[in-house]
Amino acid sequence: MNPKVSPKELRRLIRSRKWTTPTSGAAKGYLQANLVMLPRNEAFNFLLFCVRNPKPCPILDVLESGQVEPSIAPGADLRTDLPRYRIFENGQLKEEVEDISDVFHDDLVSFLLGCSFSFENAMLAAGLPIRNLEENKNVSMYITQIACRPAGPFSAPLVVTMRPMTPKQAVRAVQVTTRFHLTHGAPIHLGSPLELGIRDLNRPQFGDPVTIRSGEIPVFWACGVTSQLAASAIPLPLVITHAPGHMFVSDLRDEDLTLL
Amino acid sequence: MNPKVSPKELRRLIRSRKWTTPTSGAAKGYLQANLVMLPRNEAFNFLLFCVRNPKPCPILDVLESGQVEPSIAPGADLRTDLPRYRIFENGQLKEEVEDISDVFHDDLVSFLLGCSFSFENAMLAAGLPIRNLEENKNVSMYITQIACRPAGPFSAPLVVTMRPMTPKQAVRAVQVTTRFHLTHGAPIHLGSPLELGIRDLNRPQFGDPVTIRSGEIPVFWACGVTSQLAASAIPLPLVITHAPGHMFVSDLRDEDLTLL
Repeated sequence: MNPKVSPKELRRLIRSRKWTTPTSGAAKGYLQANLVMLPRNEAFNFLLFCVRNPKPCPILDVLESGQVEPSIAPGADLRTDLPRYRIFENGQLKEEVEDISDVFHDDLVSFLLGCSFSFENAMLAAGLPIRNLEENKNVSMYITQIACRPAGPFSAPLVVTMRPMTPKQAVRAVQVTTRFHLTHGAPIHLGSPLELGIRDLNRPQFGDPVTIRSGEIPVFWACGVTSQLAASAIPLPLVITHAPGHMFVSDLRDEDLTLL
Repeated sequence: MNPKVSPKELRRLIRSRKWTTPTSGAAKGYLQANLVMLPRNEAFNFLLFCVRNPKPCPILDVLESGQVEPSIAPGADLRTDLPRYRIFENGQLKEEVEDISDVFHDDLVSFLLGCSFSFENAMLAAGLPIRNLEENKNVSMYITQIACRPAGPFSAPLVVTMRPMTPKQAVRAVQVTTRFHLTHGAPIHLGSPLELGIRDLNRPQFGDPVTIRSGEIPVFWACGVTSQLAASAIPLPLVITHAPGHMFVSDLRDEDLTLL
């Protein structure tokens, strides 16, 4: 994996199936996005769900139905330019595929939502620890007892990622990640996991557990997996998402959407 | 006008027609909002227009069709709690009314969008000049040559407000207003009006011209009127908006939605 590959080149490699693995760490410095595609007749309600829950579901781009070229990556094709997709039918995961050209149809609306890779780069640059990267694991993710604001048929519990650090580092992490308001922004909680309904940090619902050292506290950020739970929880005939870690890589730089 | 009236009390006065004038300066410190109501079958496209143009059209709340009680003001009723409304039919302004109870129907979706009153309070607190307030006028608004990103049938030129100040004050104004990202945020331009296609600052398309003193430059912010132009430019059977200056007053404080 060459982190210096350009987004355009990376998408070309993916499209020709020369790259089929996760995109974490690739085309470093460029915004990666969660993908959700669903039928047009529920697009208003799903867009409303994202608007009402901007911390877990920050909107980077929404395409008109049938369109596959995002404004944040001219020339790209959402049917072929992600390394791996998940296909849900009637709320059930049916299969994972590397290309959705034969499944996509004109009635589908595509949503690209922000991902925490952006602020992780900024945290690393600020000398903050990202334990899962240190331990070569996937980030720990938990389903909380906090309900998102529903919209039409869409509802979901808030899903969070967790990164352990010292209280002093946590203060700095708040400062660093606040700027990235379109890629989950500031933490939603720090300290007691019980207040979020998380009983055991060693048993995340998604990803891997990581080491929490003495003197460290857990710091929680809203997570884009929330949007996938919402989209796949109701029996829509067809929902397509990226497979975990296999994101869409845009031409926007991490810094392009920061507020300050 | 008592600036210390609470939002709830102000809405009660408006509902009983004891308050029928503009809301500028009333319930100071609380977020006021632009209102746009339009038919459900175009709600997705209009929401998309707002999402794609967040500076002029920052979304504070969107209600499901037929709903009239916003989450940002429990107990309020959008049919009666604004002092004055505009009713458009087939793209034409038909009339201004003080109550839309007899016009509203279950198929309408309501959008509440941020308004610059919020950051004006913060600018005043920072000692920055707001010339139109000093001169007891409406803010100067201009239609620019910058096109918003369209969505479905909706398109509009970007409308801006202008406040003159010294370059040093302009720097401070950028800092102060950046925090208010859901109420138009940082300026979109400063200096040369010609770059926006504005030929004569003394002839705004909406509002009043104000004095620009020697040594001052014009500073431009995106303006919510953009959303009204977009909604009323296509021949929808019914579009309802607030009348200029007669905003919806929410229970949120100006500070509640700031990023920092």
